[in-house]
Amino acid sequence: MSLIVQKYGGTSVGDLVRIREVAKRVAKTYDAGNDVVVVLSAMSGVTDHLIQMAEVLTDSPNRRELDVLMATGEQTTVALLAIALTEMGYKAQSILGHQIPLLTDSAHSSARIVNIPKDQVKELLDQKKIVVVAGFQGVDPGGNITTLGRGGSDTSAVAIAAAIQADVCEIYTDVDGVYTADPNVVPKAKKLSTITHDVMLEMSGLGAKVLQIRSVEFAKKYGVPVHVRSSFNEEEGTMVVNEDKDMERMVVAGVTLAKSDARITVTKVPDRPGIAAQVFQAVADAGISVDMIIQNTRSGNMTDITFTVGGADYKRTLEVVKKVAAEIGAEDVAGDTDIAKVSITGVGMKSHSGVAARMFRALADEGVNIMMISTSEIRVSCVVELKYAELATRILHTEFGLDRED
Amino acid sequence: MSLIVQKYGGTSVGDLVRIREVAKRVAKTYDAGNDVVVVLSAMSGVTDHLIQMAEVLTDSPNRRELDVLMATGEQTTVALLAIALTEMGYKAQSILGHQIPLLTDSAHSSARIVNIPKDQVKELLDQKKIVVVAGFQGVDPGGNITTLGRGGSDTSAVAIAAAIQADVCEIYTDVDGVYTADPNVVPKAKKLSTITHDVMLEMSGLGAKVLQIRSVEFAKKYGVPVHVRSSFNEEEGTMVVNEDKDMERMVVAGVTLAKSDARITVTKVPDRPGIAAQVFQAVADAGISVDMIIQNTRSGNMTDITFTVGGADYKRTLEVVKKVAAEIGAEDVAGDTDIAKVSITGVGMKSHSGVAARMFRALADEGVNIMMISTSEIRVSCVVELKYAELATRILHTEFGLDRED
Repeated sequence: MSLIVQKYGGTSVGDLVRIREVAKRVAKTYDAGNDVVVVLSAMSGVTDHLIQMAEVLTDSPNRRELDVLMATGEQTTVALLAIALTEMGYKAQSILGHQIPLLTDSAHSSARIVNIPKDQVKELLDQKKIVVVAGFQGVDPGGNITTLGRGGSDTSAVAIAAAIQADVCEIYTDVDGVYTADPNVVPKAKKLSTITHDVMLEMSGLGAKVLQIRSVEFAKKYGVPVHVRSSFNEEEGTMVVNEDKDMERMVVAGVTLAKSDARITVTKVPDRPGIAAQVFQAVADAGISVDMIIQNTRSGNMTDITFTVGGADYKRTLEVVKKVAAEIGAEDVAGDTDIAKVSITGVGMKSHSGVAARMFRALADEGVNIMMISTSEIRVSCVVELKYAELATRILHTEFGLDRED
Repeated sequence: MSLIVQKYGGTSVGDLVRIREVAKRVAKTYDAGNDVVVVLSAMSGVTDHLIQMAEVLTDSPNRRELDVLMATGEQTTVALLAIALTEMGYKAQSILGHQIPLLTDSAHSSARIVNIPKDQVKELLDQKKIVVVAGFQGVDPGGNITTLGRGGSDTSAVAIAAAIQADVCEIYTDVDGVYTADPNVVPKAKKLSTITHDVMLEMSGLGAKVLQIRSVEFAKKYGVPVHVRSSFNEEEGTMVVNEDKDMERMVVAGVTLAKSDARITVTKVPDRPGIAAQVFQAVADAGISVDMIIQNTRSGNMTDITFTVGGADYKRTLEVVKKVAAEIGAEDVAGDTDIAKVSITGVGMKSHSGVAARMFRALADEGVNIMMISTSEIRVSCVVELKYAELATRILHTEFGLDRED
């Protein structure tokens, strides 16, 4: 007998027929003798619809109230699933963010989890009930409803699994696991049977959309085993685990592609100490995260600074940087969004040298020019021209032996 | 400066355009120097839609979970109104049933209010905020969401007005006040400028749909002045007050019509002590409320018992009564829904004799046969054949001098 947390995403509870399917799967897990906690998202499209309603009223809805509004989405699905389970003869009870309580800070629309007392959920489990938790939502110390940001239900699920020390947190989604690359880009991509938290963390940050990055952080921090799998079939998905011996043998676990970044270049910056700091302080003050940075020294005490930011921040970054460029006497500020970031990630890179060199050579051999590079202990990322995005991904997928053999 | 509670019904917040109109009206009241608490229903049709979703899953949805589901309706409108008010530059904050907390018993879908601590609402008012309360919903001692039953937002509004000792509770609806009769039935019906709690209470119980009867009970018990008015114009509506001198002069304040009752007759019941009690105990045990009762003694120690119940309880009552009829040896059970109850109500009836006789004569003069009669201190009700329903209403409206003179 295990204690299992199952999280179902928006497409898995997209309509009443699917909610009934979820009820059957939950019941099956319960019938096998397990304690089951279910965490649900809103029906797919509902959160967007709620936001659209608010945006009819104003461009910038009050964030406290937007959270009150958005929280109705998950409240609806948990009630419906509990109704479906009760109808099937199971004892089931929904529980909302404030009822757990899933305590967060007060950063509405992107709140961080502070604490999850396990007593309420445990008490319901002790009553042999299936507990149906509204994902995505919490409550701040003032009793105000908060939400955790896009994909927050993943984080709810993993955090609750950590709080009640569940044996596994199953994330049911519309893909059947974590792949070596996006199968839409690389037809020969393989499903991974296991992946470490660290590699999943890098891959989530690099464009793999399968898990919200904060849920992986939670899973890593509290050592929660996460099982990513499809709600539309019975196949095993991908286990996200702390350590994995099989993984060590693979140098590269996956190739990820992010196409939504933008590049900004400040040319002929006077090469004085503190100048770069001045530029990036202004960007940071505007709440914008910078990804990669390159500095090229020119002749004549001049330097060019190039960096990348998320595409959504592009225009605002341009404005901020143009202002600071004028102040420091730089020549010009230019930018574009015609870039892509292709990355290889794997725990095996720690113990294998020459992985980065092999990556650069493979791209060069096919005529793909590398514009920027950044690395971590288990990752190498290259910025290339957008037109090479898919090609570069496939080159690296083949180069590091990830192609599926049919 | 007054403390004003304003309640807006489902049609008044039926879409985003109307929510914005409500925001303007609320703002106007606030700008006039008043403290304002707004109580909202769900958008019209939404509660029905939510129930329909649950009923796709099962004929008898778990009532606890149905309340969780239905509560999303008001949560949506309060968030949207608070967003609209904030956009207009006002400080506004939504507050849900469990946040007040509006404490109820645990009778899901028809919970009764137990207590409303005023501190939370008062604190928000002290911050000069417009408080936007989700109507219809409460929370039981176990922290479970409850709902107050159809029209429960009226009750929420009046109960909150009582708790915070508001100067007036304004009920905004799609009619512009309480009429001497339903204007759809009696074109010459007049709007009443005032009505007493007692008369309103009787009229609400008799088919006047303008206020939920429990809200009037609250208003009477705590002496809350209620102003029923339209959200679609600026006209004064009807004040529901404790005592009214003008009212005393009118013998009859209004004529009400209820067409949804059903009549059940048990024939040839052995006329022994306790037999009638046995029948009505069985009906009461099934949770069915009986309205009028008539017992006709036949020759030979036999009696016929006729009584009326709400139309929704008709089939279930028939089943219950057929079973008990067999047990007590009654001949037959028959029933029909082709009846209507027409009633006259007025505080003036206390001090005027002969009102009932005048009612019976007026109906008889027009050939309307009276099948059953019941009276209270301020009301006389007659059951007539359904086909005479509207005619009987108009006859009495004219007879008691209520017709509008154009």
